Amino acid sequence: MAGSQASHPHPYVPRDLHLPGYVPCFLSQSNILSVFASFTVILFSLTWIFSGRLKKTKVDRLLIFWWAFTGLTHIVLEGYFVFAPEFFKDNTGFYLAEVWKEYSKGDSRYAGRDAGVVTVEGLTAVLEGPASLLAVYAITTGKSYSYILQFAISLGQLYGTAVYYITAILEGDNFSTNSFYYYAYYIGANFSWIVIPSIISIRCWRKISAAFQVQSQTKKHKSR
Amino acid sequence: MAGSQASHPHPYVPRDLHLPGYVPCFLSQSNILSVFASFTVILFSLTWIFSGRLKKTKVDRLLIFWWAFTGLTHIVLEGYFVFAPEFFKDNTGFYLAEVWKEYSKGDSRYAGRDAGVVTVEGLTAVLEGPASLLAVYAITTGKSYSYILQFAISLGQLYGTAVYYITAILEGDNFSTNSFYYYAYYIGANFSWIVIPSIISIRCWRKISAAFQVQSQTKKHKSR
Repeated sequence: MAGSQASHPHPYVPRDLHLPGYVPCFLSQSNILSVFASFTVILFSLTWIFSGRLKKTKVDRLLIFWWAFTGLTHIVLEGYFVFAPEFFKDNTGFYLAEVWKEYSKGDSRYAGRDAGVVTVEGLTAVLEGPASLLAVYAITTGKSYSYILQFAISLGQLYGTAVYYITAILEGDNFSTNSFYYYAYYIGANFSWIVIPSIISIRCWRKISAAFQVQSQTKKHKSR
Repeated sequence: MAGSQASHPHPYVPRDLHLPGYVPCFLSQSNILSVFASFTVILFSLTWIFSGRLKKTKVDRLLIFWWAFTGLTHIVLEGYFVFAPEFFKDNTGFYLAEVWKEYSKGDSRYAGRDAGVVTVEGLTAVLEGPASLLAVYAITTGKSYSYILQFAISLGQLYGTAVYYITAILEGDNFSTNSFYYYAYYIGANFSWIVIPSIISIRCWRKISAAFQVQSQTKKHKSR
């Protein structure tokens, strides 16, 4: 019926999740992924060219890409989720709403506005997003706070991911439409945010510990 | 009735929180607080004497006390909560169960086993607790990872506290029996874990940044 307020049935689990006004996805999974993949490729190219001109090491160039990528993802994608509680009602095909409608098939707590998920995404979007862009600046300009900043953000990402998974387990781990979405979205899409922050944290820990070893050896030399 | 399984009415808010088998507190508020205060005073005395013999600075001696205090609190008090989901049924007057029965008057999510609270307390008890005791060891033996470890734990404590309060706000902020318990327990008892980790984080950030400034100046000197 034209002008009807009748809600479409949603595809999410648990089936009794109440989402009045839900509007199905307009974009296909491949559309959504290809836009995100294009963004990633373009960003990688831009940061790689930019960091090459600054004569940075390969590790620094990869880090500059990562922090730009994760920072923009946090601010734009996750920031939209945090401040658009009714994204599942979007009937314009707006890309960011489509992403979260699709991702909710892997974790319906997004559509259902679970307090734990909103909290983690809020801290990620508002604090870690801008901090990640600051890390790009800190690495390119060689600031003395570069490692401690990268360590702080990575630890925040790891803590957030831990809260994300542990709350799901405690609440029954039954938020995926099926096991494809469980592994592809819920596990797969978050996997980079476990592996990469772990590697960066360990690297920063070592660099910082080494700096204090140098400092204490310098003091010993001076006091001789 | 003797031998009756009838549950006592609980004192928590929201009133419709379902806690079958609840057994009221045996200890008074002043009993519970005086045990915790005694533990704090004894621990302070022990760590102060111990760190004095090691000829540590006053700041290091206070830090040794803080990390011992917060580590034992995380492991013993919060660890008990994490692994004793039915503490509110305890009918033996066991101190740790009494603490959480009493604290639940400030935040009934403890008795109600809210997933966000259990997650934060789990990470705190299992990771941050032992890491805090490692910080005692790192400070007393002057390890090069001392600052980065203290920074990591403090950041974890701050992240956990943020999750704790933000989830409560998103869920309606209605978990206190009355405003006395709201301010005394929910705000007051957590206040130290906002202020002290903030101070320690800032201090560690500065120390670490300074170490890298020294390192880069040393390199410049050498390259001249």
